[in-house]
Amino acid sequence: MQNRRIVLASRPEGPVGLENFRLETAAVPRPGEGELLLRTRWLSLDPYMRGRMSAARSYAPPVEVGAVMVGGTVSEVVEARAEGFAPGDLVLSSNGWQDYAIARPGAVTRLDGLKLPSYALGVLGMPGFTAWHGLLQVGRPRAGETVVVAAATGAVGSVVGQIARIRGCRAVGIAGGADKGRHAVETLGFDACVDHRDPDFRQKLKEACPEGIDVYFENVGGKVLDMVLPRLNDGARIPVCGVISAYNAEPGDDGLDASRLLRTILVHRVAVQGFLINDHAAEAPAFRAEMQAWLDSGQVRYAEHRVPGLEAAPQAFLDLLQGRHIGKVVVEA
Amino acid sequence: MQNRRIVLASRPEGPVGLENFRLETAAVPRPGEGELLLRTRWLSLDPYMRGRMSAARSYAPPVEVGAVMVGGTVSEVVEARAEGFAPGDLVLSSNGWQDYAIARPGAVTRLDGLKLPSYALGVLGMPGFTAWHGLLQVGRPRAGETVVVAAATGAVGSVVGQIARIRGCRAVGIAGGADKGRHAVETLGFDACVDHRDPDFRQKLKEACPEGIDVYFENVGGKVLDMVLPRLNDGARIPVCGVISAYNAEPGDDGLDASRLLRTILVHRVAVQGFLINDHAAEAPAFRAEMQAWLDSGQVRYAEHRVPGLEAAPQAFLDLLQGRHIGKVVVEA
Repeated sequence: MQNRRIVLASRPEGPVGLENFRLETAAVPRPGEGELLLRTRWLSLDPYMRGRMSAARSYAPPVEVGAVMVGGTVSEVVEARAEGFAPGDLVLSSNGWQDYAIARPGAVTRLDGLKLPSYALGVLGMPGFTAWHGLLQVGRPRAGETVVVAAATGAVGSVVGQIARIRGCRAVGIAGGADKGRHAVETLGFDACVDHRDPDFRQKLKEACPEGIDVYFENVGGKVLDMVLPRLNDGARIPVCGVISAYNAEPGDDGLDASRLLRTILVHRVAVQGFLINDHAAEAPAFRAEMQAWLDSGQVRYAEHRVPGLEAAPQAFLDLLQGRHIGKVVVEA
Repeated sequence: MQNRRIVLASRPEGPVGLENFRLETAAVPRPGEGELLLRTRWLSLDPYMRGRMSAARSYAPPVEVGAVMVGGTVSEVVEARAEGFAPGDLVLSSNGWQDYAIARPGAVTRLDGLKLPSYALGVLGMPGFTAWHGLLQVGRPRAGETVVVAAATGAVGSVVGQIARIRGCRAVGIAGGADKGRHAVETLGFDACVDHRDPDFRQKLKEACPEGIDVYFENVGGKVLDMVLPRLNDGARIPVCGVISAYNAEPGDDGLDASRLLRTILVHRVAVQGFLINDHAAEAPAFRAEMQAWLDSGQVRYAEHRVPGLEAAPQAFLDLLQGRHIGKVVVEA
């Protein structure tokens, strides 16, 4: 029995490529007293992982070259040398991109009774919580306002738009390609979805937001934000939860005009607020209860893109950064 | 008796020049029933005027080509055809860059009993109010935190630093040239002042802020903000009250890296909040009372740069945009 693991082979210079990853095999680790041996069932792929591949310290330390890529997982207990756990139990943990890992009970969360355990990596986990906190606590939308979110069919954006609708807002998505636009409107219930690849994107965005934009949930940055700026209403709020475009960008080349951004902030009294969901753990129970109720009632719908096989994780991650998927991306390990 | 007035001769393309202004003379207007004829005593020069010279609608409409430049004034009543006013009364008004103007009583504020009437254009007026509201309500500094403000010897920045000190913060100014630095530290009581023209500016700023930056009061933009970004602490606040550099900048050339700005906002959970002081008139009485008390007790000091003669206003305004003055710039008309 071997442990397959995907390590950071080298730090990307420019866009991430497959050469930045390496699949290794090693012995399966043995749990010590008080520890659990976990087998990864689902691995979450998320844009923040791009930040961890670079040497610059972000809000968390980088992954060392040669170390296993980090990541949240839903894992099954294989061997339990800690009280209260038994083989077959499912837990939320941070095994990273590998088949097996050792964890102490304090580092995992039991997933008893969750009908669809992989949801703990998405709509009921960090991405859903990011959408819920960021929109409601930072964006503070009022009924009748217009909420715009990019990456509208992704794990965070899809939830942002649906919560906006629940709160009586006009929800406008931005996504790449007609398939995503249809999914956003027909399945997720967005009022409109604009294709950022459309040569008339600027005009289409304007038409989709006839009363301007009150909340722009920022999760991509770059050119899209630049196009949003002229549409912002006085007092608009911009929660900033992640900036995919900036991860790949060289200074000055991401299509966002900094002086235009500052002028807009001033002229329209805009509030731009960065947040990291890890700071808000105290709100997690309230989030889970509300989100579970919305899922049960069908008010929130959720799409997963499942990728079979741990070895497919690097390509799936590149596809995620390129926006090639609809829905939350999880690897079935 | 003639009315000298300075009109917008043309809209600037690039930096403002003297050629964008024209001095004209016209007949002195005659007040109708219920109106006041005012003679300008002091004209305020402020960076926001640069925005009004461009065609793009900012938070206020632009000055039309051929129209008198806008501006706040302390004016003397010459002829009063309205009840409650008499010749010799001083009022705060918006005569603009001219000797005489007509106003209705509702458009002016009496300045009875103000020992130094021109202070109503500075520390006791819009710039002081901008500093007070922006720092205390938007920046919300706590004792022991570090507050950084650029244009540290200007009408707004000088007050920001002194209020920061009153609230128990470390106050660090940024200003161009050694004279301004000395003024900020020795006269205004800043803990330190860094020269943005210094080739070692980045390192000097770091040394001046050994515990990082908690509040950056943004009033210049561009390169200075770019240098501030790496020093921001988690949870830092950036009130944005004006962006001088952006007024002159072409897209992308103002030295601020937009993707770095967004990454910093995210990683350090920074709040960037634009505000316009006109939105907060209800706080003005509280501001005036507190600021007058600070002036009386010597806790806030205030420097004026007085320019003699209305005809000197255009050059003085160019000098203001170039940062050539210490203190609040007023024209004695």
